[in-house]
Amino acid sequence: MADVEKKSLIDPFGMTLIEDYEKLFAEFGIQSFKPLLSQMPNPSAAMRRGIIFGHRDFERILEAMKKHSEFAVMSGIKPTGEFHLGTLMTAREIIYFQQQGAIAFYCIADIEAYEDNGISFEESKKIAVNNIADMLALGFDPKRGYVYCQSREERVKDLAIAFSRGVTLATMKAIYGERHMGLYLSALIQAGDILLPQLEEFGGPKPTVVPVGVDQDPHIRFTRDLATRFYGKYGFIPPSSTYHKLIKALDGSYKMSKREPMSYFTLDEEPEVIAKKIFYAFTGGRPTAEEQRKIGGNPEICPIYDLYLFHFSEDDKDVIDLYNNCKCGNILCGEDKARLTEIVAKFVKEHQRKKSRCIDKAREILEMG
Amino acid sequence: MADVEKKSLIDPFGMTLIEDYEKLFAEFGIQSFKPLLSQMPNPSAAMRRGIIFGHRDFERILEAMKKHSEFAVMSGIKPTGEFHLGTLMTAREIIYFQQQGAIAFYCIADIEAYEDNGISFEESKKIAVNNIADMLALGFDPKRGYVYCQSREERVKDLAIAFSRGVTLATMKAIYGERHMGLYLSALIQAGDILLPQLEEFGGPKPTVVPVGVDQDPHIRFTRDLATRFYGKYGFIPPSSTYHKLIKALDGSYKMSKREPMSYFTLDEEPEVIAKKIFYAFTGGRPTAEEQRKIGGNPEICPIYDLYLFHFSEDDKDVIDLYNNCKCGNILCGEDKARLTEIVAKFVKEHQRKKSRCIDKAREILEMG
Repeated sequence: MADVEKKSLIDPFGMTLIEDYEKLFAEFGIQSFKPLLSQMPNPSAAMRRGIIFGHRDFERILEAMKKHSEFAVMSGIKPTGEFHLGTLMTAREIIYFQQQGAIAFYCIADIEAYEDNGISFEESKKIAVNNIADMLALGFDPKRGYVYCQSREERVKDLAIAFSRGVTLATMKAIYGERHMGLYLSALIQAGDILLPQLEEFGGPKPTVVPVGVDQDPHIRFTRDLATRFYGKYGFIPPSSTYHKLIKALDGSYKMSKREPMSYFTLDEEPEVIAKKIFYAFTGGRPTAEEQRKIGGNPEICPIYDLYLFHFSEDDKDVIDLYNNCKCGNILCGEDKARLTEIVAKFVKEHQRKKSRCIDKAREILEMG
Repeated sequence: MADVEKKSLIDPFGMTLIEDYEKLFAEFGIQSFKPLLSQMPNPSAAMRRGIIFGHRDFERILEAMKKHSEFAVMSGIKPTGEFHLGTLMTAREIIYFQQQGAIAFYCIADIEAYEDNGISFEESKKIAVNNIADMLALGFDPKRGYVYCQSREERVKDLAIAFSRGVTLATMKAIYGERHMGLYLSALIQAGDILLPQLEEFGGPKPTVVPVGVDQDPHIRFTRDLATRFYGKYGFIPPSSTYHKLIKALDGSYKMSKREPMSYFTLDEEPEVIAKKIFYAFTGGRPTAEEQRKIGGNPEICPIYDLYLFHFSEDDKDVIDLYNNCKCGNILCGEDKARLTEIVAKFVKEHQRKKSRCIDKAREILEMG
């Protein structure tokens, strides 16, 4: 790969399309993450690369990290299938905060899987064993974490019941629209999940960060509101949140979706299958190699670039080089895909190998949680 | 008391003001209880006297009673205060069915007390000890019954969660109007209570009767609908119900209410206080004794007559005589009240004496349930 001419080199991470998110900042009160970045003791790749672009009350978490005082990270997975690139993102955020000193809460959202998708708790449990094994293989430390199923965590259900008294139908409709009771109940249960780390049994009120995609912000606002309303009884600190961008769908469609198997891959797929999905992936490249060399590619719209950016390059410099080499026409989509295919295959093989040794532990954790 | 002239003697129990209830029968599909009465092996006073005027699917219960096959009775109390004449009614119905062979389920509705009245589970528990002692003093047999608190009965909460997926917001609004989430959740939990006796842990699907006031019929319809919808998973038999009339408020107001202490009395009150309430009670009497003797009283509108009819006369003949003597002007309100005061005082003293010996047992039951 030819070196990028120094004069044209730009930092793509600073280019976070803030304009897309200005509405979020202005209308919903989400704060930009950028001003906090320089203060972070040890920012994650997603933070450094502008994937995490926004937050609510993250200062509280930053302070806890700096002072090495107690804080929690809380998120979970709806057990509907294998780990994919979206769940991988959240998993890495949880593991990052855990490594930075947080007590990690990881919820198997089997009530939500039932309410949203009609999946029984028994089915969820089978899927969850696999999901937890992924977490362990990725570096989640069960000794500093609490993994549980919603359906068996009575404290979460009891919080949902307590909160329900504070919530009007108008509030539910404003946030979630006109939905069935199960969805409303899920929302209350999710608020219970987010505030669970602050119960006395877990050491009482503490700063808690919930890393989510921006589409999850209504849940965060709802829960922050409940935290304030039920302060008198529980002493809750409103939960903090970070917002990450969503990785682009491989096939150029609107978003990764189970209905479009070519739009994503999972960590359980055969490397050969993944290779094929990468081979057929949409890119930001030009119609011909000649044109590409002449005017350069467009990484901003490219899912292949996103895969490096989000998950498959540990070195920021490598990603910056890739961006600029693409922009300058120094690299063609074919080469780019071939290199990625190798990296992904290596990662997935190694992950599957590690994971196979985590299944028993995952099962054990699930039986306890 | 002079004997009633035989020619004027009518049976007041047959006079159940069916016309008032015809709408219920015609529009809501509630059935008249009367045709079943003659088939009942051992009808209760409330059945014989037309206080229980309607039912849904009671044939199923009747059959179980005749065949001595398994069935359940289910009801409960919202622990917001002392046993009054309304809760006494339900208590007697549960005890009656228990004595006829039913397994009795008695729910301490502390989630409802929280959602409706803001009473904490701790407060509810204190009140519930007193309520359960009343049940025991009235003859409830804990060995053939299951007494539990909603807040600690996980199976009920799990049923509510399961049911929520089957319920649209439109359904909730149609039944309960536009209310807060807590009330909707209460309704789902109440459906869980009613269907709890049919879970495998309690021997599986069985006919279950829920004795209620007719104002509770929306809950019954809602639960019957859920029973049908979730038949596939649980095999539920739609619950049966009986409907009783409401006893008239002592002070002639619309209904007994805590806001009007003269409208009712509780089983914990001093007989002297109760005597006073009876003394000042509204009656169906005429302005003067002369007029009363001449044209007779009006027991249909009289709360004093209702007290005999519902609770304080064990002998049907005595109530019939009272009705007719009143109608004929043979008895004046003063005498009637004096006799009732004595009966009630005797009952309450005896009840309080029995109850004082049941408190420990009540506490023990509550700790288990």
